[in-house]
Amino acid sequence: MSEKIYVFDTTLRDGEQVPGCQLNIDEKIMIAKELDKLGVDIIEAGFPVSSPGDFRAVEAIAKAVENATVCGLTRAVKKDIEVAAEALKPARRPRIHTGIGSSDTHIKYKFNSTREDILQRAIDAVKYAKTFVEDVEFYAEDAGRADLEFLARLTEAVISAGATVVNLPDTTGYLLPHQMHSRISYLMNHVPNVDKAILSMHNHNDLGLATANTIAGITAGARQVEVTINGIGERAGNTSLEEVAMILKLHKDLGLHTDIKSEMLAPLSKLVSSTMRMPVQANKAIVGRNAFAHSSGIHQDGFLKHAETYEIMTPQEVGVDKSDIILTARSGRHALKHRLSLLGFELEKEELDSTYQRFLVLADEIKEVNDGHLVDLMKLAV
Amino acid sequence: MSEKIYVFDTTLRDGEQVPGCQLNIDEKIMIAKELDKLGVDIIEAGFPVSSPGDFRAVEAIAKAVENATVCGLTRAVKKDIEVAAEALKPARRPRIHTGIGSSDTHIKYKFNSTREDILQRAIDAVKYAKTFVEDVEFYAEDAGRADLEFLARLTEAVISAGATVVNLPDTTGYLLPHQMHSRISYLMNHVPNVDKAILSMHNHNDLGLATANTIAGITAGARQVEVTINGIGERAGNTSLEEVAMILKLHKDLGLHTDIKSEMLAPLSKLVSSTMRMPVQANKAIVGRNAFAHSSGIHQDGFLKHAETYEIMTPQEVGVDKSDIILTARSGRHALKHRLSLLGFELEKEELDSTYQRFLVLADEIKEVNDGHLVDLMKLAV
Repeated sequence: MSEKIYVFDTTLRDGEQVPGCQLNIDEKIMIAKELDKLGVDIIEAGFPVSSPGDFRAVEAIAKAVENATVCGLTRAVKKDIEVAAEALKPARRPRIHTGIGSSDTHIKYKFNSTREDILQRAIDAVKYAKTFVEDVEFYAEDAGRADLEFLARLTEAVISAGATVVNLPDTTGYLLPHQMHSRISYLMNHVPNVDKAILSMHNHNDLGLATANTIAGITAGARQVEVTINGIGERAGNTSLEEVAMILKLHKDLGLHTDIKSEMLAPLSKLVSSTMRMPVQANKAIVGRNAFAHSSGIHQDGFLKHAETYEIMTPQEVGVDKSDIILTARSGRHALKHRLSLLGFELEKEELDSTYQRFLVLADEIKEVNDGHLVDLMKLAV
Repeated sequence: MSEKIYVFDTTLRDGEQVPGCQLNIDEKIMIAKELDKLGVDIIEAGFPVSSPGDFRAVEAIAKAVENATVCGLTRAVKKDIEVAAEALKPARRPRIHTGIGSSDTHIKYKFNSTREDILQRAIDAVKYAKTFVEDVEFYAEDAGRADLEFLARLTEAVISAGATVVNLPDTTGYLLPHQMHSRISYLMNHVPNVDKAILSMHNHNDLGLATANTIAGITAGARQVEVTINGIGERAGNTSLEEVAMILKLHKDLGLHTDIKSEMLAPLSKLVSSTMRMPVQANKAIVGRNAFAHSSGIHQDGFLKHAETYEIMTPQEVGVDKSDIILTARSGRHALKHRLSLLGFELEKEELDSTYQRFLVLADEIKEVNDGHLVDLMKLAV
């Protein structure tokens, strides 16, 4: 039996706050509708109190989204919660996401406060949010560095106060996967009412470990993942939606699944990248331009014999047309023969050998050899 | 006591074979020299038999590098090994990297062969390479999907044949970190002569887990990591050098270290990105443009009070000048007050409130507010 992992997309909140990539309202609505079709369970639409523009965006998204829950971020502050509740009024399924710092660093330096005071403010915020909506998620900011015993008390307290989801973010992207696994296991075993709520992963990518930490958290018992398209977000970004979705799809032995329609991943990645003007690097997992490109001779040879030698998923599964064979000086005879044959040139061994030597000289010079170059090369041979 | 992890950089081999990013010889020499200064232990310079241009590049790098071992890739084929040995002649510390597929998928579909035959070809290749150089690394291609008992036999056999390093690549980027940990632990416990060689990690990033898998492998006993600058490489790329180096630097409790000079990471990332014309995305861990940029109001407020609330390393540690505070509609009063004060405007609470409201209207419209905009905003206020 496979258990469902809830996908909470924060492209329009944590992603949108990235330098240089704010969207206008129409673009936000368009992306929210696509996320809804993709099959995400919760869309975090913004931080309503932060600006009049963000308030209007959350309100418009709440109106436009048909299936997913729509969520608004707040601090553990009455005004924030009231404004978020107002913006979420048109939502079919509204959720308020409130919270406060939980690590001693945050408690001391950001709030100039004490653990006991933070605990009370957390409880008050959840109770206040519950007067507006049924579905209240609590975030324990910087949970990754929080004292674990205190974090368990805080989690228990906010669940008692009515939180439906408790988000335990690795805000600074510091933890290693085995540490995340043991921290979430601790909470699953030491919070008496943990079965009354869902624990959530919200991991940052400062050390390149966001996806691994998220997987570690859900194998330990968390059941919600907070992710963004292309992994965009504050600093080095958030966990990539596309990576988590494909890991669970390929590793069925984990016994966990999402409702993500994977064939929409590549098109939606392009939409987000172009509207936000945030280019995705060629070697980005799943959605990068080269993710399904084979360029070395060793790989091309194996791939042409049997795709599974170098591919664990088909490009079609994530909405990419086909795998690419790129001809360069690193390509071998097999790839050259294959491409020439597609162009109508059938070469015997000896002819292939001499053509391959000329091909290598050309490729050393011009780097990528395309079909036009090959036709010219064959003309020279005649 | 901290144990050393050997850093094997393959930017110039696995990185260079990426579509569109081949380098000319002068650029390769320049990058090799910088990698040598950075403190990498081994530089994989190319695949000498693949083309005349690559042969010349490996030879030129072998001449130019002063401290690091210089390595050339081969298949388990005599001709490849002879050509690599020739190209590596000028190297102070040459290494030949030879190997063959080890998973049943590779053995059956790529080599149309049997496990016993592959075992013999592996032994023969290592022995032949040893007639040219002392330092021979063997790669068991697709080790991530290989039968574990066979992989242990293969590892034992190539170590007996003289391999100094055994590389166990997750060629298709399929494994999860806990699986990698248990596979390497198995080899550490079931290969009788494992103490006579170093096990190496070479992980691909198809599911976004290359760095996590590499860390999992070295915590299980591997002592070499194969990495590239910016994580470039075949398909979704390789493990990022900068991520592994900073993880070991920050997580001293792992008891592992590298000799990487971390303050060279950002400059070298830029050099590789610009010479290869392979842009790094803004949210790339450690070296992305936004890796040290704080844009949300909640984060800016905490960061200004105490940097450690949102930063686990200083930008200076990786060679970046300073952390950025970007003013957008998601910024709060604290960040605005701070920036205005740097510009010479000291505002009292009431004046700050009204300025902040005007700032938000402007930021909703123009997205990023720079110092020039702020000066204009203050002029309007007068």
